[in-house]
Amino acid sequence: MHNFTRNLLTEWRKLNLPFADETFVVAVSGGADSLALALALADLRKREKLNLRFVVAHFNHKLRGAESDADEEFVRNFTVGHDFELALGRGENIRGEKGSLEQAARVARYDFLKNTAESLRARAVLTAHTMNDQAETFLMNLIRGSGVAGLSGMRPVRILTEQTRPDTSPAKAVENQYSESKIQNPKSKILLVRPLLSWAKREDTERFCHDLAIEFRYDTMNEDLAFRRVRIRRVLLPLLRDFNPKIVETLANTANLLREEFEELEKIRERNFSENENGGLKIKELKNLASGARRRVLRAWLETKRGDLRGLDLKHVEAIENLVLSRKSGKTIELPGNRVVVKSGGRLEIKSGAKN
Amino acid sequence: MHNFTRNLLTEWRKLNLPFADETFVVAVSGGADSLALALALADLRKREKLNLRFVVAHFNHKLRGAESDADEEFVRNFTVGHDFELALGRGENIRGEKGSLEQAARVARYDFLKNTAESLRARAVLTAHTMNDQAETFLMNLIRGSGVAGLSGMRPVRILTEQTRPDTSPAKAVENQYSESKIQNPKSKILLVRPLLSWAKREDTERFCHDLAIEFRYDTMNEDLAFRRVRIRRVLLPLLRDFNPKIVETLANTANLLREEFEELEKIRERNFSENENGGLKIKELKNLASGARRRVLRAWLETKRGDLRGLDLKHVEAIENLVLSRKSGKTIELPGNRVVVKSGGRLEIKSGAKN
Repeated sequence: MHNFTRNLLTEWRKLNLPFADETFVVAVSGGADSLALALALADLRKREKLNLRFVVAHFNHKLRGAESDADEEFVRNFTVGHDFELALGRGENIRGEKGSLEQAARVARYDFLKNTAESLRARAVLTAHTMNDQAETFLMNLIRGSGVAGLSGMRPVRILTEQTRPDTSPAKAVENQYSESKIQNPKSKILLVRPLLSWAKREDTERFCHDLAIEFRYDTMNEDLAFRRVRIRRVLLPLLRDFNPKIVETLANTANLLREEFEELEKIRERNFSENENGGLKIKELKNLASGARRRVLRAWLETKRGDLRGLDLKHVEAIENLVLSRKSGKTIELPGNRVVVKSGGRLEIKSGAKN
Repeated sequence: MHNFTRNLLTEWRKLNLPFADETFVVAVSGGADSLALALALADLRKREKLNLRFVVAHFNHKLRGAESDADEEFVRNFTVGHDFELALGRGENIRGEKGSLEQAARVARYDFLKNTAESLRARAVLTAHTMNDQAETFLMNLIRGSGVAGLSGMRPVRILTEQTRPDTSPAKAVENQYSESKIQNPKSKILLVRPLLSWAKREDTERFCHDLAIEFRYDTMNEDLAFRRVRIRRVLLPLLRDFNPKIVETLANTANLLREEFEELEKIRERNFSENENGGLKIKELKNLASGARRRVLRAWLETKRGDLRGLDLKHVEAIENLVLSRKSGKTIELPGNRVVVKSGGRLEIKSGAKN
């Protein structure tokens, strides 16, 4: 077994992923990273180490004309040759300038991956992010000054969509249909898994493709230095490598370290919040929380104050979050049941609405 | 009043520093940063905004022959011209290669500054670190992979030496002499203050000197690209400025942000430690602490276990700290009173010594 394949299997165990009876969507662009991932998975399937259904998903952004179509054709041929099912998506009218174009393309691609995973009832979408992606993202966010959250590295596993997978066992299906329970089994959520992130570098994926005599595609956008990420990859990282030959590992480790520290701090802050709350939430402390934790705190607070969460949507929580983050005071958010949330004296409070 | 001077006065107020009846040591190399600081202080003294005694301290590292001596002569003339007292130090036989030479020079310089401040009974040593120094240090440590502590920025104020200043009031002098109290008045400690760190960039100090028609010295070591910090200043930062024109401010702010977050986490960890301790300290959690917090935890633990801290020196705490950080197990640290500290099962424990 090739070292690359063996490393992937080790990581698969470490991440506690299933070995049989599940479907995984594999995001494949045609570049070295995603081809290496798909090739190693095909090998593990052939050796019956993984008895899983893998569906390759390719998204044609339609941004580079004939070249985009050639990528699609290339991935189609690859899946035929390696006995993969294929799900194809095509971007229509993705527009934007430089960074925002990249962002718009990313959103369209992830929507496609989510929808594909949901319709296949897949356990997870696998993406081929490497340590290099981790290091590049860290540098992008550092240079932009994105603050603490942006310096926290990507995780190898996160929840892709809160949408639960319909359970296929008949008894449970009925239970799900009628259950009022708000607690969802996290196992039923679709995950985003990055099985190369913790150990593979770009040179590893390229070498693996080369060892298997598999040609991979180059994204010509990767040659366009106008793209910020590409300049980081082609100009900044090589310079940093002069300072430290292991700069990619160093930056990726730093991003992981920072994520761990902040997640710990975040948990403590969230916990202290629900304990200290009396008669209002402190705006300053709310601002210190990351968005996920802030929304959990807000929901718990609304539930305590109103008795339940009836009639409350994500849009109410988002509106309150915006109120917290805005510099203006005096604005109020109306809630169902004739209550309003107001910001005053550095605190968030719930009051009776003016209409009664 | 020049903007630079006004900004310094604002920062002086913000840092809650005294305006009269105290002595400050001003570290001056002869470069733009330290000359700008000394010039602004001289102006504030002349305007009677600050009624303080300022003593310029210059350390001649003796590393660049005639040039070092010329720097010394330059600073001597500067102090005469601007009515400063001068304390001079000279390095003897500072040796080392590149980074370690820089480090050895720094240690010798700080020893000199400490001794000068102690003998003058000064309130603080002032250094002219700017946002650029903050940004460069951040990048150095990021590239080296120094972990969380190294990414936390320098503080505008820290304690330089735990050595207390002899109190000059006779009653208190007696009290100090005989007091057994371990609680020391932080006001009596000598501080290291960096009054330019939060707001001044190198271009500001250079412009201020230029506006006052004051020549400043260039350290020829700053031209030697073999020095890592100099390469960061001359090669890396200009490249990063192409990505973000405000890169110095961005990196300095990031370093501050990370410091604040980690100090908060550190405090929580230290607090939780003394609460959770029962029958041993967890090695893993001890490793997570920064050195200062770790030593405080160890001291508190030793005091609880032994009843007091009698006979325990810094060297015992350092030895235990080394035991915590080393990968080996089985080693023991002997304490006065026939007790030993051992590492076993991931925990640190105190046992009776073998000699009884």
